[in-house]
Amino acid sequence: MATPKLLHYTLDPASRLVRLMCAEYGVDIELQHVKAWHREPAFLEINPAGEVPIFNIDDQLTLVGVSAVTLFVEEQFGAEPLLLPKEPIARAETRRLVDWALNKFSEDVSRYIIEEKYIKNDVRGSTPDTAVLRVARDNMKEHLSYFNYVLATRRWLAGDEMTMADFALAAQLSALDYLSEVTWDTYPEVKDWYQRLKSRPAFRPLLLDRVVGMPASKTYADLDF
Amino acid sequence: MATPKLLHYTLDPASRLVRLMCAEYGVDIELQHVKAWHREPAFLEINPAGEVPIFNIDDQLTLVGVSAVTLFVEEQFGAEPLLLPKEPIARAETRRLVDWALNKFSEDVSRYIIEEKYIKNDVRGSTPDTAVLRVARDNMKEHLSYFNYVLATRRWLAGDEMTMADFALAAQLSALDYLSEVTWDTYPEVKDWYQRLKSRPAFRPLLLDRVVGMPASKTYADLDF
Repeated sequence: MATPKLLHYTLDPASRLVRLMCAEYGVDIELQHVKAWHREPAFLEINPAGEVPIFNIDDQLTLVGVSAVTLFVEEQFGAEPLLLPKEPIARAETRRLVDWALNKFSEDVSRYIIEEKYIKNDVRGSTPDTAVLRVARDNMKEHLSYFNYVLATRRWLAGDEMTMADFALAAQLSALDYLSEVTWDTYPEVKDWYQRLKSRPAFRPLLLDRVVGMPASKTYADLDF
Repeated sequence: MATPKLLHYTLDPASRLVRLMCAEYGVDIELQHVKAWHREPAFLEINPAGEVPIFNIDDQLTLVGVSAVTLFVEEQFGAEPLLLPKEPIARAETRRLVDWALNKFSEDVSRYIIEEKYIKNDVRGSTPDTAVLRVARDNMKEHLSYFNYVLATRRWLAGDEMTMADFALAAQLSALDYLSEVTWDTYPEVKDWYQRLKSRPAFRPLLLDRVVGMPASKTYADLDF
């Protein structure tokens, strides 16, 4: 098998989840940056939904969308300890929280902040809508309070073991942290958990990411923030 | 195993997907109607995200959220022909389209229509916002045009075989059809496909659903609409 290729953009949380899973399982991938929001015809032909991640294997198998890609990575490259546990209760709890991070957190919080601060920065003449940012930041408080509560009683998000739920939420927060949007000290349990994740080798490549013309926050690459 | 219990509400598309999968696999379930939008404390304790479906097995295993529940149903009750195919290309294509129906279609179209027409009907003093409905209906046109295009070249949504992608989209459309929101004749391939699905025994229980004080559209239970 040739090195699989991942179409992504730097601050896309769903693509970051795929990168974390591949790194954790020791799978080298080649990154190809796509400004998905430009909706180029050649890109829409691959994914009419106009979204990343897209994963390409040997130019033969193309996996489109975060569910298809993460399921494939887990089933084809997964090695013990698995990121999606086999045991039914842990498996269901992991899926519940992956869903929360990928859909609920994204819909309430990250998609707006990333759109306003990162994507609009690439679109000439557009500026962030502060009213939208305010709502997204308010929503983020509720989400982080819940995760802080969960992490007060569990070592990892879905229980005693690290799972893809941890990566799914960390992928979201890392993108927002790049944009200086996470008030870590308000959520000490979340901060402690994120510090542990950030120290993992799988996390390192993400911390080297830089967006041209948009420096990372001070906390972004700092392991002891 | 006692009969599993599904917490749902009548027009929730994600719960309808679970009902269709269980019916197709011949699994009897007990339905319990929950007005999730009331956000009762006892309900939020089961799912802090405040959403259905929630699936309960023998009062011991509680599965929360559509991903956790559908994965469980597929893995525990699935029988050939599987609704989530094993072969990697078909599996990825099925996941891509399930995601589209559950997340993209829902975010662009159905969550708004269901909120404005169904949920607000249950909340005293609130009325549908016609501007929101207009945007959702416009979005629906784009989605249905795409699905019409896909179904012009394939018998089922993800390929030659029926999969959970068909159920995921049909679950969405059935809820909107109840509310007279689907202009079937504009999308002949979608209509033909939906007619085939609607005739399956697994679909029948859904067609018997009624919302108090809100009659179903004329097409809803008609197999030859």
